Amino acid sequence: MPSTFREQVRSKRFTGSTAGQCGEYAQANLAILPSAYAEDFLRFCVRNPKACPLLAVGEPGQFEIPQLGRDLDIRTDVPGYNVYRDGELSDQPDDIRELWRDDLVVFAIGCSFSFEQMLARERVPLRHVDEGVTVPMYRTAIPNHAAGPFGGQLVVSMRPMSGAHAIRAVQVTSRFPSVHGAPVHLGSPAAIGIEDLSSPDYGDAVSIHEHELPVFWACGVTPQSAIESARLPFAIAHRPGHMLVTDIPNATLAVL
Amino acid sequence: MPSTFREQVRSKRFTGSTAGQCGEYAQANLAILPSAYAEDFLRFCVRNPKACPLLAVGEPGQFEIPQLGRDLDIRTDVPGYNVYRDGELSDQPDDIRELWRDDLVVFAIGCSFSFEQMLARERVPLRHVDEGVTVPMYRTAIPNHAAGPFGGQLVVSMRPMSGAHAIRAVQVTSRFPSVHGAPVHLGSPAAIGIEDLSSPDYGDAVSIHEHELPVFWACGVTPQSAIESARLPFAIAHRPGHMLVTDIPNATLAVL
Repeated sequence: MPSTFREQVRSKRFTGSTAGQCGEYAQANLAILPSAYAEDFLRFCVRNPKACPLLAVGEPGQFEIPQLGRDLDIRTDVPGYNVYRDGELSDQPDDIRELWRDDLVVFAIGCSFSFEQMLARERVPLRHVDEGVTVPMYRTAIPNHAAGPFGGQLVVSMRPMSGAHAIRAVQVTSRFPSVHGAPVHLGSPAAIGIEDLSSPDYGDAVSIHEHELPVFWACGVTPQSAIESARLPFAIAHRPGHMLVTDIPNATLAVL
Repeated sequence: MPSTFREQVRSKRFTGSTAGQCGEYAQANLAILPSAYAEDFLRFCVRNPKACPLLAVGEPGQFEIPQLGRDLDIRTDVPGYNVYRDGELSDQPDDIRELWRDDLVVFAIGCSFSFEQMLARERVPLRHVDEGVTVPMYRTAIPNHAAGPFGGQLVVSMRPMSGAHAIRAVQVTSRFPSVHGAPVHLGSPAAIGIEDLSSPDYGDAVSIHEHELPVFWACGVTPQSAIESARLPFAIAHRPGHMLVTDIPNATLAVL
């Protein structure tokens, strides 16, 4: 149960990566920004919905977000946080109650763990899972639609698949726009500015078998990268892999 | 209007290919078989639904098929017929009233013209249309699920697309299972036993641009090829490209 899991996180009995935890429930990428930047960032998310699908946005100062979970406290219920000051990573606390301010706005952004669970249910193999590594991610040449200080390039995750599995993966993930939805590209990496699949910018390289093609999805690292490059005086995000586990069953995110 | 168009066909004022005629309405591949073989062929269609999606099946001797069109007469309303005797093409009449028998069963099978109209509406370019040729088709190494004398290999049509258009094409055609539905494969031709894309088994080769990949759909030539290889004493089909124009709007075939 997500609420039980979050209690373990809150009491520091769980401090690791949330990959595979409460697999049937959506996990969220977190961005926590001063309200002076929140309006620009909200427009950034709306303009780049495949990379930044919003599960929830809080009011300034609001750290309980009931639509994400019962009794959820965003300041304590994530196993690890990254704190940025003037665009630099300054601290990695496991609790942000002492950093909380009345002007902070919480953004919860959908995560590929949700559609990966749906792909696994449909027996679509996931190479990075089979090889026990983090999914490979790449900065593309595709510019984000900018808003205020937030811009940069689209970051994608890549999963190699057979043609038939790629077709099935398009069908399955198209039903879930709030967790990145359909792929943004498949086939030629060079077509989107990726030079070498064996050198991902984030995560780990995976093997690609004969007759497989790379399938690319918009990735939640995109907003994090946009926040870093905006060099805000103050911002908080989840530590990579250490997501917020919500009460939202993945299956309920299907639009059809 | 399809009924007006069929009147022109019936009176021999129209005798050509139906490509582009009444584009908003479904066209059908035709197979007309003696009832002794109809049961096997019906099972063949049911077992191979991507290649042989049935729009309608008649009763033995029934040449009016109201679910396909008002006042439709299958013996006169197709611009050209192929008649097979002992598995050989024996005649190409433009009317089969004199050949009609009380034991003939009509099968109307969905046609890719319908999903191509939907792709064009979504601004997905179709290379063979742009180049003014017939779509390239290939015999694959994928065996059909056999029934009685009907077997053989899956035949596919191929349309080259960018990655983004391929993804959109999967989404669009998935909504139309009765006109072949989603692609069966994309990417490596060798993975499905196609050696050379520039040498199609039917239709014409088309150019493939940089960063494009071939996208393959199950093709209505599959049942025609299965009928030919079954070497029935007697069978009738439409002449390639000379389809039955029905009253069914393509848009109404969408399952979602």
